[in-house]
Amino acid sequence: MKILVLHGPNLQLLGEREPGIYGRNSLDAINHKLMERAKELGVELVIYQSNHEGELLDLISRYRNQCQGILINPAALTHYSYALRDCLAAVQIPAVEVHLSNIYAREEFRHKSVTAGVCLGQISGFGPASYILGLEALCRHLKPQDAAGEATD
Amino acid sequence: MKILVLHGPNLQLLGEREPGIYGRNSLDAINHKLMERAKELGVELVIYQSNHEGELLDLISRYRNQCQGILINPAALTHYSYALRDCLAAVQIPAVEVHLSNIYAREEFRHKSVTAGVCLGQISGFGPASYILGLEALCRHLKPQDAAGEATD
Amino acid sequence: MKILVLHGPNLQLLGEREPGIYGRNSLDAINHKLMERAKELGVELVIYQSNHEGELLDLISRYRNQCQGILINPAALTHYSYALRDCLAAVQIPAVEVHLSNIYAREEFRHKSVTAGVCLGQISGFGPASYILGLEALCRHLKPQDAAGEATD
Amino acid sequence: MKILVLHGPNLQLLGEREPGIYGRNSLDAINHKLMERAKELGVELVIYQSNHEGELLDLISRYRNQCQGILINPAALTHYSYALRDCLAAVQIPAVEVHLSNIYAREEFRHKSVTAGVCLGQISGFGPASYILGLEALCRHLKPQDAAGEATD
Amino acid sequence: MKILVLHGPNLQLLGEREPGIYGRNSLDAINHKLMERAKELGVELVIYQSNHEGELLDLISRYRNQCQGILINPAALTHYSYALRDCLAAVQIPAVEVHLSNIYAREEFRHKSVTAGVCLGQISGFGPASYILGLEALCRHLKPQDAAGEATD
Amino acid sequence: MKILVLHGPNLQLLGEREPGIYGRNSLDAINHKLMERAKELGVELVIYQSNHEGELLDLISRYRNQCQGILINPAALTHYSYALRDCLAAVQIPAVEVHLSNIYAREEFRHKSVTAGVCLGQISGFGPASYILGLEALCRHLKPQDAAGEATD
Amino acid sequence: MKILVLHGPNLQLLGEREPGIYGRNSLDAINHKLMERAKELGVELVIYQSNHEGELLDLISRYRNQCQGILINPAALTHYSYALRDCLAAVQIPAVEVHLSNIYAREEFRHKSVTAGVCLGQISGFGPASYILGLEALCRHLKPQDAAGEATD
Amino acid sequence: MKILVLHGPNLQLLGEREPGIYGRNSLDAINHKLMERAKELGVELVIYQSNHEGELLDLISRYRNQCQGILINPAALTHYSYALRDCLAAVQIPAVEVHLSNIYAREEFRHKSVTAGVCLGQISGFGPASYILGLEALCRHLKPQDAAGEATD
Amino acid sequence: MKILVLHGPNLQLLGEREPGIYGRNSLDAINHKLMERAKELGVELVIYQSNHEGELLDLISRYRNQCQGILINPAALTHYSYALRDCLAAVQIPAVEVHLSNIYAREEFRHKSVTAGVCLGQISGFGPASYILGLEALCRHLKPQDAAGEATD
Amino acid sequence: MKILVLHGPNLQLLGEREPGIYGRNSLDAINHKLMERAKELGVELVIYQSNHEGELLDLISRYRNQCQGILINPAALTHYSYALRDCLAAVQIPAVEVHLSNIYAREEFRHKSVTAGVCLGQISGFGPASYILGLEALCRHLKPQDAAGEATD
Amino acid sequence: MKILVLHGPNLQLLGEREPGIYGRNSLDAINHKLMERAKELGVELVIYQSNHEGELLDLISRYRNQCQGILINPAALTHYSYALRDCLAAVQIPAVEVHLSNIYAREEFRHKSVTAGVCLGQISGFGPASYILGLEALCRHLKPQDAAGEATD
Amino acid sequence: MKILVLHGPNLQLLGEREPGIYGRNSLDAINHKLMERAKELGVELVIYQSNHEGELLDLISRYRNQCQGILINPAALTHYSYALRDCLAAVQIPAVEVHLSNIYAREEFRHKSVTAGVCLGQISGFGPASYILGLEALCRHLKPQDAAGEATD
Repeated sequence: MKILVLHGPNLQLLGEREPGIYGRNSLDAINHKLMERAKELGVELVIYQSNHEGELLDLISRYRNQCQGILINPAALTHYSYALRDCLAAVQIPAVEVHLSNIYAREEFRHKSVTAGVCLGQISGFGPASYILGLEALCRHLKPQDAAGEATD
Repeated sequence: MKILVLHGPNLQLLGEREPGIYGRNSLDAINHKLMERAKELGVELVIYQSNHEGELLDLISRYRNQCQGILINPAALTHYSYALRDCLAAVQIPAVEVHLSNIYAREEFRHKSVTAGVCLGQISGFGPASYILGLEALCRHLKPQDAAGEATD
Repeated sequence: MKILVLHGPNLQLLGEREPGIYGRNSLDAINHKLMERAKELGVELVIYQSNHEGELLDLISRYRNQCQGILINPAALTHYSYALRDCLAAVQIPAVEVHLSNIYAREEFRHKSVTAGVCLGQISGFGPASYILGLEALCRHLKPQDAAGEATD
Repeated sequence: MKILVLHGPNLQLLGEREPGIYGRNSLDAINHKLMERAKELGVELVIYQSNHEGELLDLISRYRNQCQGILINPAALTHYSYALRDCLAAVQIPAVEVHLSNIYAREEFRHKSVTAGVCLGQISGFGPASYILGLEALCRHLKPQDAAGEATD
Repeated sequence: MKILVLHGPNLQLLGEREPGIYGRNSLDAINHKLMERAKELGVELVIYQSNHEGELLDLISRYRNQCQGILINPAALTHYSYALRDCLAAVQIPAVEVHLSNIYAREEFRHKSVTAGVCLGQISGFGPASYILGLEALCRHLKPQDAAGEATD
Repeated sequence: MKILVLHGPNLQLLGEREPGIYGRNSLDAINHKLMERAKELGVELVIYQSNHEGELLDLISRYRNQCQGILINPAALTHYSYALRDCLAAVQIPAVEVHLSNIYAREEFRHKSVTAGVCLGQISGFGPASYILGLEALCRHLKPQDAAGEATD
Repeated sequence: MKILVLHGPNLQLLGEREPGIYGRNSLDAINHKLMERAKELGVELVIYQSNHEGELLDLISRYRNQCQGILINPAALTHYSYALRDCLAAVQIPAVEVHLSNIYAREEFRHKSVTAGVCLGQISGFGPASYILGLEALCRHLKPQDAAGEATD
Repeated sequence: MKILVLHGPNLQLLGEREPGIYGRNSLDAINHKLMERAKELGVELVIYQSNHEGELLDLISRYRNQCQGILINPAALTHYSYALRDCLAAVQIPAVEVHLSNIYAREEFRHKSVTAGVCLGQISGFGPASYILGLEALCRHLKPQDAAGEATD
Repeated sequence: MKILVLHGPNLQLLGEREPGIYGRNSLDAINHKLMERAKELGVELVIYQSNHEGELLDLISRYRNQCQGILINPAALTHYSYALRDCLAAVQIPAVEVHLSNIYAREEFRHKSVTAGVCLGQISGFGPASYILGLEALCRHLKPQDAAGEATD
Repeated sequence: MKILVLHGPNLQLLGEREPGIYGRNSLDAINHKLMERAKELGVELVIYQSNHEGELLDLISRYRNQCQGILINPAALTHYSYALRDCLAAVQIPAVEVHLSNIYAREEFRHKSVTAGVCLGQISGFGPASYILGLEALCRHLKPQDAAGEATD
Repeated sequence: MKILVLHGPNLQLLGEREPGIYGRNSLDAINHKLMERAKELGVELVIYQSNHEGELLDLISRYRNQCQGILINPAALTHYSYALRDCLAAVQIPAVEVHLSNIYAREEFRHKSVTAGVCLGQISGFGPASYILGLEALCRHLKPQDAAGEATD
Repeated sequence: MKILVLHGPNLQLLGEREPGIYGRNSLDAINHKLMERAKELGVELVIYQSNHEGELLDLISRYRNQCQGILINPAALTHYSYALRDCLAAVQIPAVEVHLSNIYAREEFRHKSVTAGVCLGQISGFGPASYILGLEALCRHLKPQDAAGEATD
């Protein structure tokens, strides 16, 4: 089982970017933890970061037949990229949207997500842990038997 | 370490209520799983469901010196209860807001949360797993050392 | 056949409350007439008034397996109680929303109902007769054969 | 006592028009039942259907001195015909607005009525029974003595 | 010189309709005075009242080559008839919009005119005198020499 | 195969009306071309122009069992006639909405169509050619075999 | 009988200011014509122009016991001066609001008048003639006997 | 003379709750001062705090014949409880709304009060002194003779 | 201790202006009472009324080093004078905003204050007593020791 | 004559993407038909698909001196790409906007096009035929003589 | 060449007013620098500060034939003074709007300028340097030859 | 000292693109002047133009440790690119936003900037001079000593 992990615009700056909001972990550190957790969960990750909306669409399109799930932090694109929304809807692969910061505790324009409505769900506000939780949520959905004994949706 | 788990209005109907949206698990089943997971995580849970906004406020107020965290599904109150928002802000206990369904994939009025902004974060869309993930997110925040080796916020 | 009749906030004040808008009948007088009409229609009524949103939810939940219909005047809750909306939607019992005054002939905020959309229909503006008409509408729906000879929906 | 019954635009298509929303009764069937019920209530009906806003105004104006009440389903005009609103306000004859479908359970633009505010009240959502209930509401208002023993507004 | 005078919906009810707002003059009385004033001003009037938006359009279209000016009280159509706006713009005959009541001192929806923007100007609030003033304004515009000695636009 | 062609308010003025926006073709010229093209496409046309919303509804209703498609330029009614919307939805005959001018390049109020949502599609901005293209689009839909070799929807 | 004539901000620039919109008459020329017409109507005028909202209020206050009517062109203050609105409402002297240009045919922000609602009425769009018509409207209201033989409000 | 003092949701947390906004006084301290001031003013106080909207309605209803005035801090309910508004309007007892913090200097949603419009007036921003001032305002209104020598409304 | 008292536009008309809303006290009477109360409180008052926004700004600026507090009724400027807001914010002198009428019980545009957010607080609805209460609130803030025994903010 | 055909984001997924909305034709199939039709019309096509807004701008810029027309389906960019709007306006090449689905029959956010206003016109709702019709509309505009005998704009 | 420099409301308080936002320079210091720079640029300055909207209009009007350019910081008037907008538009002298603070980085109401649209351009956010840059921009526009070698508009 | 100069979408078309709005200078001409002025100011420029939002983000990210300032014309991205806003905020390098045209004098959608709030300031409306002024503003900020004798922020 393969999962496509996508980091949207500006996330390459993590660690040095407004640490009061986004924390002090670098993107590499987050990816490293994600891979460790993925190994435990028995899933393979394909990880990309891009500042280009179009590249994110290209990646989702290219991997649509090789991946069973998508873990995505659309960053600022969350708030206006209907193209990203259409793409996630088009490929019909279960996706989970994650945010490092609590988008409801910031500027008004961040309270609205145009992409979450075509995902399984959204996790926001837990720093790097949002990614770990998102990965777990995705695996529970994809491999409900592994989350045996737990309530399923 | 004690965590207050609050289920808002109508959640007592889980399992029989619009199963297409909320799933077939009863609230008891969810609570059972939560308690199992809590045991693994080494935390104690105090669980309540109430249809009364005022009772939820009373509970948060009563337990404010005994609990270190709050896991709450405010249900429909999410969208208009500024009293609940004020209460969560007042006690200053880390709280996590969870939703069974993906609130972004439903009616327009559900896209807005008046409570999430005073929580640590929000998890929505994963059915009963939203609670499990929320509990884990809360524990990571409260006991970062137990999530050792992981990136922290 | 049993019908749950619910009077929302402040309706206990009927008769003395702004009689120019709400008329001079007390709630007892209205209930009395409702029971008389119910006897004629061959249905049993269970009647409650509450100022508590949560109590209305509790009642709907408690009677959900004993009643075949709900006649409700949500009063001011009409305009903001998404919890009441969710509750009516959850139990899936046919409900009729009634109002004593014509909500379209009053303040702007009363023109919007968040609950009517999950009811069979709404009747507003006929004073106490709104209740009688609502009861009849509910019975027609529940016992179409008794309204034999009439057009059905 | 004479009552003017007006069916607005497109209601001539009833029965064949979107039966999932409007039911399978033809307008003739509805009129037939209305007349039967009118006979029981001892009132005379004058019934018209028109697709023309102007014709509805002409009719209200022409019958303003011969009728004591108006039963009207303004159909789509409900949502924008200020001319119809002005006309109903001008003649000052008690009017009742009825709708076959529950306007609150459909598209957003149907949640607003520009005409209901100048009527006695509004009944929506009960299919053909909306008309019967509307006729009864109108008669109660016009002949309160016949509804003797009942609470009045 | 010929001027088309158009009275919109419900104006046939003048005198008996809400006299507190519209005054006690009948439409005939207004037309009579308009004709007297027209004689003094040396212009001919063609006068119609219609409750039909379409008929008003037909009239404007039919008289477009015979009239040099239009005096119109669009009544409620003022607020939503883009068809009337388009028609007045299409024939390019100078038009003056008049209102008996002060539309700014009434309900919010009357503060907006969709037709005034394609007229020479608007006069509202002077009762029947609004028509007389409108006729004079139109004549001044059409026959500036007759208003000799006066400032022109 | 018969197609109902409807021209809405003010289109009888084409050619003389604001030629900078609507072009210099008369409605007759457009109808002539439509009939020529119809002959080539092997369909029969029934053509009407009306300034009356109600008449357009009457026509759609009258021809609903004789026509297989509707080609309509609702003109200004596009922006507010929910009655026309309801009518097109009611008869369930495939309809195509056309506009001579590009409604997106004009005033804000023209950017919204309340009727297009119940049509097959909309074509705007190509002058008289909008009608020809609309007729072709309708025929492709109705007789896909004649558009053989082409991609279908 | 004395009438206070008030010209609001920037009207001292008339004649040289955007003549395409405001015409080529100077304010003196307009005042001259107003005085001539006043003489014919047998009323005395007191005329002021001010760029200061406060001065306009001072003038209305100072003359409130000496004048029987107010003719005012509030210019840009029309759109936001609630102080001017309050002042006109406070003195309870009949006032007429006039505008040289058609405020409905210009920018969106000019479509709204915060002052007209407390005036008798509004006249806009007739250039300098707006003032003459406004003066006549005011006199008709104040001396209805002089407008004998005419319909009154 | 008896006055009902109502403290809305979360006010039991005063002193420990966000002291930067709400000050360091406990609710008991405020009540103590209120009672001292009441004694000076010669009025009796009945004081309650509740987190339940319904309980506040119950209290107002229960005391409606025993109290001559209401002093209420609706807290967060200020912004959405139309039920509280209706209740205050229904009992027709003079009420004064008070707020510890300046609601205009906080979040946008706090700038709107749905309850103040049915009160005598509102006092906000003076910390505990808001209550003392509110009590005085209420007494002045109820016992104008005691405020002799002072201007009355 | 010196306090600047500012009365905004139109308040010179108090007593004769819409007495149903503003009461029958003249501004002099109010000022007289304010001075009496000031004497009791041991503070000196400097009182001005102006219809000029600019003069109010000049006064605040001129007295900014001589006064310790500002008591202001901005009247209609409350709703749009961002210049007054900026001025009050700039001088950083504690200010209290007062209104004679309950601004929440009047027109929609009066529900918004652009100035209150930079004041200590706002008092509205108590007629002339609003000023007395405002003065007391200001003194409590400036001389908390004199309000000894009372809860402070 | 050369025409630039641009397919916006996600259109490479056609055929497999939500076939209920977008149909079962692949983009290749559509391009194939477009080329066939282009050959008949005697025009040359240059066809690109890109998920990158920037690339679409680059292409329009690069071909601006080699193409006489643009046929573009901006897909989701329709709703927010002011950069694409500016680009189409900048090069001043006649463009036609096409959509496979009827954008008025889908989510609210799709009812708005920020690009159509700078195109010749828009065609939406006819599946792949939207492209064919768009190509024809473009050719009619560019080579009116070839559409001889037809009405032109 | 003469330039009119206007400082709007509250700018006389510069230096002592919210220095975190507006800097520590006094208005005199800014004027001094402006005059130095003006001398270098070979232009003469006429400088005024006023808290009165009307005075700013008077000044612009008075100097309209003596100045070739206007440099204006309308301060809070930026956001609502349509009178100032009209005045700048009326005199048709090139004007540049400047702001000390970045109006986009402050409260929502400061993001909108009603005056900038009738100016050459706007400069905001550079503290006192905004004035210097504005003066240079104005001179470049007025004396393009002096900015020889530079690109012109 | 190095400054990154970024030209957003479509600016490569300068000179040929809508010269009435954007002027006749090519981007090369502007860059040439910028470099000349930079030499005078003693700063080094790195200049890029891109139609790709993502590329602009890449460039800002790549040069974030080599540049001390950013001069950016985001063109159409100004109005919707929250990604660009986030990027400028993330790198925390002083940036100045410039526009050739006066964005307040154009379409409504251009009045809003989502990027200016995270810049030092904004300069718009001076054609190519906007860039020169922006460069000077940036240098004044970065090297206040060089602007010695001038007022600083």
